[in-house]
Amino acid sequence: MRVPMVPPSLLLALSLLSPLLWGSAAGSCPPRCVCASNLLSCSQANLSTVPTPLPRFTAVLDLSHNNVTRLRADWAPARLPHLHALLLSHNGLAFVSTEAFAHVPRLRHLDLSSNRLRTLDENLFSDLGELEVLLLYNNEISTVDRTAFENLGRLRKLYLGQNRIARFPLELLREGTRLPQLALLDLSANRLRAVPAGELQALPAWLRDRLYLHNNPLACDCLLFQLLDRGRRRHLSAVEDFQDELRCFLPGATALVKILELAGKPPLNCSKAREAVLEAHLGDSVTLGCDSRWQGVRSRHWVTPGGERVLGDGGNGSVVLLANGSLQLRALRPEDGGTYSCWVAGPLLNETLYVELLVHNFTLHGPHDTLNTAYTTLVGCILSVVLVLIYLYLT
Amino acid sequence: MRVPMVPPSLLLALSLLSPLLWGSAAGSCPPRCVCASNLLSCSQANLSTVPTPLPRFTAVLDLSHNNVTRLRADWAPARLPHLHALLLSHNGLAFVSTEAFAHVPRLRHLDLSSNRLRTLDENLFSDLGELEVLLLYNNEISTVDRTAFENLGRLRKLYLGQNRIARFPLELLREGTRLPQLALLDLSANRLRAVPAGELQALPAWLRDRLYLHNNPLACDCLLFQLLDRGRRRHLSAVEDFQDELRCFLPGATALVKILELAGKPPLNCSKAREAVLEAHLGDSVTLGCDSRWQGVRSRHWVTPGGERVLGDGGNGSVVLLANGSLQLRALRPEDGGTYSCWVAGPLLNETLYVELLVHNFTLHGPHDTLNTAYTTLVGCILSVVLVLIYLYLT
Repeated sequence: MRVPMVPPSLLLALSLLSPLLWGSAAGSCPPRCVCASNLLSCSQANLSTVPTPLPRFTAVLDLSHNNVTRLRADWAPARLPHLHALLLSHNGLAFVSTEAFAHVPRLRHLDLSSNRLRTLDENLFSDLGELEVLLLYNNEISTVDRTAFENLGRLRKLYLGQNRIARFPLELLREGTRLPQLALLDLSANRLRAVPAGELQALPAWLRDRLYLHNNPLACDCLLFQLLDRGRRRHLSAVEDFQDELRCFLPGATALVKILELAGKPPLNCSKAREAVLEAHLGDSVTLGCDSRWQGVRSRHWVTPGGERVLGDGGNGSVVLLANGSLQLRALRPEDGGTYSCWVAGPLLNETLYVELLVHNFTLHGPHDTLNTAYTTLVGCILSVVLVLIYLYLT
Repeated sequence: MRVPMVPPSLLLALSLLSPLLWGSAAGSCPPRCVCASNLLSCSQANLSTVPTPLPRFTAVLDLSHNNVTRLRADWAPARLPHLHALLLSHNGLAFVSTEAFAHVPRLRHLDLSSNRLRTLDENLFSDLGELEVLLLYNNEISTVDRTAFENLGRLRKLYLGQNRIARFPLELLREGTRLPQLALLDLSANRLRAVPAGELQALPAWLRDRLYLHNNPLACDCLLFQLLDRGRRRHLSAVEDFQDELRCFLPGATALVKILELAGKPPLNCSKAREAVLEAHLGDSVTLGCDSRWQGVRSRHWVTPGGERVLGDGGNGSVVLLANGSLQLRALRPEDGGTYSCWVAGPLLNETLYVELLVHNFTLHGPHDTLNTAYTTLVGCILSVVLVLIYLYLT
């Protein structure tokens, strides 16, 4: 298929001419690029290498739609301390040196999408401690080294869709681990056969909201069904927006079925997932989490089964609103049982989460409590007797 | 000049094939686009209109390198509440409806660069209250309506370089006005003949740092020279990085000269700008501003002419460190004069600013103070006399 020639070449010609409009005023702008102060656009400029020298003040470098097939360690021989966006999509890029990013420590946005990358090597991105968005979709990536994303403490979005990934170190997502800021992981349209559904269910909802797993040849499994079924009820984007593309292979079958339609069907006969239910005993303390889809929400409040709104200062002493939005109930009584709701004002729409609390009508530490009661009764009796004796003696 | 055909067409073929890899799994992905979860890349896909329908969950839409020459009001017939980046560079775009952005209220990044836009109409971007980056460089813009940037309360970066702008409403930059968050304005390589240098000098240094005016046919002028001369001494990026491209026409001349080389040369004989000097009188209160290049810096401290560091709590009562980083001196004494320095720890390197304070050895409100002294002396005398009289009377 032919790409239409006229507009690109005309645009290219214009872009080639424009630096010349003010005579030699182009100054530090590399040939074939359009420079707008600290932004260098060398898109579709027929480049096979990164132009050198690049001005030290460069903040954005757009090299998309070129033929830069190798990104070597020396593409930026000098430090580019201000570079925060590097765009290299559509380049047929097949090799990226593990030292390629040593001189661009302040990069926040790296676009390597629509290339021919096959592996993500050890510590490939480890120099990019400030990276926030990493686009790697539409490559040929099949191997992802466990340490490739080491040191990416600020990474918020990682797009790996449209690749050939069969194994991905999903343990990177656990809280307090290597990607503490990650809020979006796109693994759609890869070759994943299995995911640790139980572990994923334990992740906070705002992360599951953007954990895209559709268009993978997953094996059907009731834990996976329940993970997604819960996600659909919570209206998580990764499930709700891709319901038809979340499919799996039944054991022994070669055709894909929709995961969300697995409920009660042979051969798996998966049961629907229970909603959030918490069981506790009289006198216990429990904490009800408000696992919202929205990250960093500040405006939320709890309503008790009796319909009372829990205020910030806690109402009475046995109900305490914690700083992280959770509700702590102390010294549970039978009447504390019921459905608690957490109301969250999200950026787009509001969300209500329900947590059902079952309070068993006995204490788990029964024997210990009985002893205490017996002990105090005994002490009381002895004291009464002693007082009576003292009274009698005195009279 | 021919654009190399093989890699783009191959990539295009790949991108056309990829949605088909999983049979009908493509789901909501428009034809000719690569979809990675909420990101749609339809770059260089030979499109002459925006594909419809677009999935409601779309967050990033890349339509660069196509032939979308008109962006009409109905390009997004339904609301796209999640769209935060729209890339339309390299499209030969000549028309954008003033209602084009009514359905994308959460856009933060809009790239309309390298197109054929000629005017920015009334309220063109007024629906984009959350826009942070607006790329309009390398167009044919000659007319900018004063209200085009109305309601852009969150705009941080505005790139208008490589256009044909002869007049720009620079009053938009004044503090507390329409663009309160603006920290970068690129007006390089346009047709500006005059800028209000005096007004620009009053802007904070962090805004002047990224106010790019190079490659414009400016008329030489001593105020302009002094604005840039001060900027060079402060190492402002907009001056230091483009010294050779900051040029102007001398009266009656047709060739451009470097603005920073104007000092003391005929016919203008511009004098060098004075450094920050503040004059005050005995007993006055003055505030020394710490006009740093870095925005939102928290780590800074002041050192007095005597070499003492001013602590947060103010040291003695006459020297107070204000919340905005300024230093307030009250009840000035002659020994308060001298050079104060403000040390700022910036993100890349540290900066030291000097403010010279001249304390004139007389009070400006002399007569008023004298009257006060006379008044108290008089009252004291009368009181003494009355007391003596009472004493004499009693004895």
